[in-house]
Amino acid sequence: MTDNHQVRLAARPQGLPTAEDWEHTTEPVPEPGDGRFVVRVTHLSLDPAMRGWMNEGRSYIPPVGLGEVMRAQGAGVVTASEHPDFPEGAVVTGTFGVQEHAESDGRGVLVVDPDAAPVTTHLALLGMTGLTAYFGLFDVGALRDGDTVVVSGAAGAVGSVVGQLAKIRGCRVVGIAGGPEKCAWIVDELGFDAAIDYRSENVHRALRTHVPDGIDVYFDNVGGEILDAALARLRRGARVVVCGAISTYNATERPPGPANYLSLLVNRARMEGFVVFDFADRYAEATAEMARWLGEGKLRSREDVVRGGVADFPEVLLRLFRGDNTGKLVLQIAD
Amino acid sequence: MTDNHQVRLAARPQGLPTAEDWEHTTEPVPEPGDGRFVVRVTHLSLDPAMRGWMNEGRSYIPPVGLGEVMRAQGAGVVTASEHPDFPEGAVVTGTFGVQEHAESDGRGVLVVDPDAAPVTTHLALLGMTGLTAYFGLFDVGALRDGDTVVVSGAAGAVGSVVGQLAKIRGCRVVGIAGGPEKCAWIVDELGFDAAIDYRSENVHRALRTHVPDGIDVYFDNVGGEILDAALARLRRGARVVVCGAISTYNATERPPGPANYLSLLVNRARMEGFVVFDFADRYAEATAEMARWLGEGKLRSREDVVRGGVADFPEVLLRLFRGDNTGKLVLQIAD
Repeated sequence: MTDNHQVRLAARPQGLPTAEDWEHTTEPVPEPGDGRFVVRVTHLSLDPAMRGWMNEGRSYIPPVGLGEVMRAQGAGVVTASEHPDFPEGAVVTGTFGVQEHAESDGRGVLVVDPDAAPVTTHLALLGMTGLTAYFGLFDVGALRDGDTVVVSGAAGAVGSVVGQLAKIRGCRVVGIAGGPEKCAWIVDELGFDAAIDYRSENVHRALRTHVPDGIDVYFDNVGGEILDAALARLRRGARVVVCGAISTYNATERPPGPANYLSLLVNRARMEGFVVFDFADRYAEATAEMARWLGEGKLRSREDVVRGGVADFPEVLLRLFRGDNTGKLVLQIAD
Repeated sequence: MTDNHQVRLAARPQGLPTAEDWEHTTEPVPEPGDGRFVVRVTHLSLDPAMRGWMNEGRSYIPPVGLGEVMRAQGAGVVTASEHPDFPEGAVVTGTFGVQEHAESDGRGVLVVDPDAAPVTTHLALLGMTGLTAYFGLFDVGALRDGDTVVVSGAAGAVGSVVGQLAKIRGCRVVGIAGGPEKCAWIVDELGFDAAIDYRSENVHRALRTHVPDGIDVYFDNVGGEILDAALARLRRGARVVVCGAISTYNATERPPGPANYLSLLVNRARMEGFVVFDFADRYAEATAEMARWLGEGKLRSREDVVRGGVADFPEVLLRLFRGDNTGKLVLQIAD
């Protein structure tokens, strides 16, 4: 194994990324410099936020530069090390990029225990995904016991954790997801109180049925018309958590904004965005709490693992935007 | 004076209210019942929120019913009283409606001191208008000394107070208003740092010039494209105060929402609505503080007083939506 296959960003996509937006390159596997180490990447995390990183312009993180290896979270094994904290054989997670081998100085890299939970779970419930749900719901959403919570993208990586966390806190939870299988899964397996299938139901009417007294916390992963429908059902003092807007990420025309935003005024409600990085000093505490809930059977982590090579990344990424995945989408590129 | 002329809501307007939406009635001047009193109304307060009260449907306050005297704040003199707290001759403010004489049990009515400030100022800076600015900026906007503040409707009743309050707190303040006279007034007379004339300037570009480092607090009275332009210029941790959306109140088609709302995510910012009534237990404290600032010359109150009869109310109301008024619009119907 001396070749390191990589996927680089070749162009800024218009709409859904196509094959032309990517470049496949091969480089020698790096040798670790002093204080550095090399990771053989086994799993790539696929996240809706990736689409934003491909755009030019100001955001919460610099865009991926043209010609750069595509940014991605991943998991892997240290194969060579000049860093005392990351010895050979350690299983690690970090932002290794879409490539088979990555060199690192350890910043943002965690050594994880593969016996405590599968490595894919360290990318999902026990990784950035779970942390996003945790801080978004508890801190930004200021969840109170017994709140009525609605979450969109409810069968996705973040949404499925949000709903379970709210159930732990004694909330009534309604999930919005696409298709009968996803809706059945969040109710039957995850314990949501109800599900709305946005593909076959009128979300506005369904919310009237399922949350007749209104919403205390709406956790939004999708934006668009579903956000607008939720805004129309807020209770007084509601919190709208803006986590993502996957329905708009590949729009080629500027998507309309939430026309019902004046519901914030009528209901003395707030809509607030966040970026999980801002909570870095509390990652350890949150992960420990979620690991305990996982051990107690109060939380489940589901990873939708696709096997392939790094070259399959562009095609697998599209599953996110088609809504094909249930739970966390992971591309496994090695054992 | 035995006739009480009134203006009642006859129909729910489509777009701008027209003469057909109003009914002019005459009733005998009421006699006060036990524990009640009668006020001769001298001044009517004209507020953008009135337009919302004319619509059907759920809001923060019930709509004015068809056939009812139009709801309005006002000031007047007690002419007959069976209530010990509101003696004959007292000057009072309250929700007396668009009529010449009103009966009241005293709820929501304040006795004001006409020697401390003109009665119109008790409807403006020292009334609900000033309270809306005060709680919206300080509490909802969580203003910090030195913040960069942008306010729309800056030459209007609420906006002109917001900017002055922010200057007292050492903030940089940029106002958005319509026309050169208003822009000159807020800078030259009220001490705003800069003004943007939305009628002649591209607000998006002008904000880039005047707040190059972004906005900490955006206080929105207008909605529409100006809200969208401000969202694009938020700083990290910004607060957007949703006070009103006068640009949309007479729309006959559903106005688009703020397309740039994902700036809330990127900038970890929040957008929050409020209704001043929720702060009723702190009205006295806030009014006292603003009266002190008024006395010290740190705040100015400007009232745009139109003289006429109650029958002129429908026409004078339209001035608000044309942006004709500078400061608080008041219809004086008696001395």
